Amino acid sequence: MMQSEGLKIILSGPSGSGKGTIVKELIKEDFILSISATTRQPRVGEQDEVHYFFKSVEEFEEMIEKGELLEYANFCNNYYGTPKSFIDKSVEEGKDVILEIEVQGAMQVKSVYPDAIFVFIMPPTFEELKSRLIGRGTETDDVIEKRLARAVDELKMYKEYDYIVINDRLEDAVEHIRNIVRAEKLKSYRYKTYIEEMLTK
Amino acid sequence: MMQSEGLKIILSGPSGSGKGTIVKELIKEDFILSISATTRQPRVGEQDEVHYFFKSVEEFEEMIEKGELLEYANFCNNYYGTPKSFIDKSVEEGKDVILEIEVQGAMQVKSVYPDAIFVFIMPPTFEELKSRLIGRGTETDDVIEKRLARAVDELKMYKEYDYIVINDRLEDAVEHIRNIVRAEKLKSYRYKTYIEEMLTK
Repeated sequence: MMQSEGLKIILSGPSGSGKGTIVKELIKEDFILSISATTRQPRVGEQDEVHYFFKSVEEFEEMIEKGELLEYANFCNNYYGTPKSFIDKSVEEGKDVILEIEVQGAMQVKSVYPDAIFVFIMPPTFEELKSRLIGRGTETDDVIEKRLARAVDELKMYKEYDYIVINDRLEDAVEHIRNIVRAEKLKSYRYKTYIEEMLTK
Repeated sequence: MMQSEGLKIILSGPSGSGKGTIVKELIKEDFILSISATTRQPRVGEQDEVHYFFKSVEEFEEMIEKGELLEYANFCNNYYGTPKSFIDKSVEEGKDVILEIEVQGAMQVKSVYPDAIFVFIMPPTFEELKSRLIGRGTETDDVIEKRLARAVDELKMYKEYDYIVINDRLEDAVEHIRNIVRAEKLKSYRYKTYIEEMLTK
């Protein structure tokens, strides 16, 4: 009856916005999470094609060369990246895929997937953001200051996103994202085939 | 906390799409309906400023001259039009206003209210549309044919709308529109003040 292609939802938000917890809730039911590729060794309990696509350096560099990665980076001598093929395949099967991506990475994704939905997760107040960052209790003042400065820079990018979800109560934030996805599925461009078929009968 | 301006929702759809019934449901709770102005005589039970703004021809023509009408037309020697002031005032008060407008009129509204949300109500199938038009049983074949031809012309305009709502089950259609409005309230442009205030603290 309708076009059944899934949606690509890009979730970004400053450290302390709680986006990780939101993602965990969303993938319990209706969404699937994009799987990253990495060259680091699997840890105990990590499965290939479930937690990561584990690759050799040669395989990973071949993926880079062939343009198979949406974005990638190198941390501590290990590659991490987002393979396009898994996302494209999932979306074709009608699944809604979540990509949890940093603001900078998200802007790169926009040029590859202009039809993706960009959602920015916000802490309810700046004080709350600060206390969430401090609350972890494991960081020095210096690190916290740097994270706050970075959060401010990221917040300034909110206009580049389609939607803002304020993470005050987790259940509300999760429901807001489900709501956004339901509404996006009613966008008129998705009904092209449906209406054209209706009109040719 | 957030910008609390209401939304303007333009509902269009071919005759037989059931948009009138949807509107009746929506205004029971969360939405208010735009009130038209007219020069026709009030019927029994009709109240000024509730069912219509009843105007003299002089008053109505003054509204036209002053550009106070969003759109207007003349049927059977009576003027009918949509006053902007009622909509603007309601939206400023944070109310979500529904405007039930024909496709042609809706396109005019788009130039005045580019920020309005345009929703096109569709029958589930073309057969269903046809049977709903015939079902009224009060029209000749000729009238039905003309309405169908007009419905086809209107359906072709779907791309001009933001969202499509298929009116298969009334409750679903109503819920879809509520969903659209909830998602639209999360659009990032509505958070400008909120985020800017957050960043200056």
